[in-house]
Amino acid sequence: MRFDPQSLRYDEMGLIPCIAQDHDSGQVLMVAWMNVDSVARTLETGRVTYWSRSRQAFWVKGESSGHVQHLVELRIDCDRDCLLALVNQTGPACHTNRRSCFYTALRDGEEVEIMAPQAD
Amino acid sequence: MRFDPQSLRYDEMGLIPCIAQDHDSGQVLMVAWMNVDSVARTLETGRVTYWSRSRQAFWVKGESSGHVQHLVELRIDCDRDCLLALVNQTGPACHTNRRSCFYTALRDGEEVEIMAPQAD
Repeated sequence: MRFDPQSLRYDEMGLIPCIAQDHDSGQVLMVAWMNVDSVARTLETGRVTYWSRSRQAFWVKGESSGHVQHLVELRIDCDRDCLLALVNQTGPACHTNRRSCFYTALRDGEEVEIMAPQAD
Repeated sequence: MRFDPQSLRYDEMGLIPCIAQDHDSGQVLMVAWMNVDSVARTLETGRVTYWSRSRQAFWVKGESSGHVQHLVELRIDCDRDCLLALVNQTGPACHTNRRSCFYTALRDGEEVEIMAPQAD
């Protein structure tokens, strides 16, 4: 079936969450939001393009930082209200310079930092 | 630092998205929502417990289907507005009987089913 970005289920803000997962390692890198146009742009350009809720603008991941996400494959969940982007990530995905945004683990009721920022 | 479920950033509905990832294979299984009490219950019981938006009730994953998610580790992202649950998943995670909800891939502009339902 031909894919139409309009066929996804967006929330009342017109957004859908997208998980970025490292294609090689399987590491979950980050979650951000897309609107219908950023889904289309991501597929057209092969560069993962979110919608920045704070800036209300397209956010081509890595455009300023160089920490680009090249799309390997985009997947849709059963409810069509969540996306999974398998990516090749250049450098850290997190703005804190860590590989993944999920660097805090809960262990025995404590918050534990399990990932260090990468060197520049 | 001691973890307090109240310290997470919930949306205007009091919810936070949680990704379930297979601890062994790294496969992303599903995304569902938690409120502050389901986060606390998940940590207390070791059974991943979402908040069902449609039923407005706790949803102990697998309670009726037997397709339980045992929590291995819960992680928080940098913005504290998304969770990652590493789990041991019994059987399929998806209500369609597929291992993962992300069974539809976009390839050359087409929707392609990449995963079959598991046999009962």
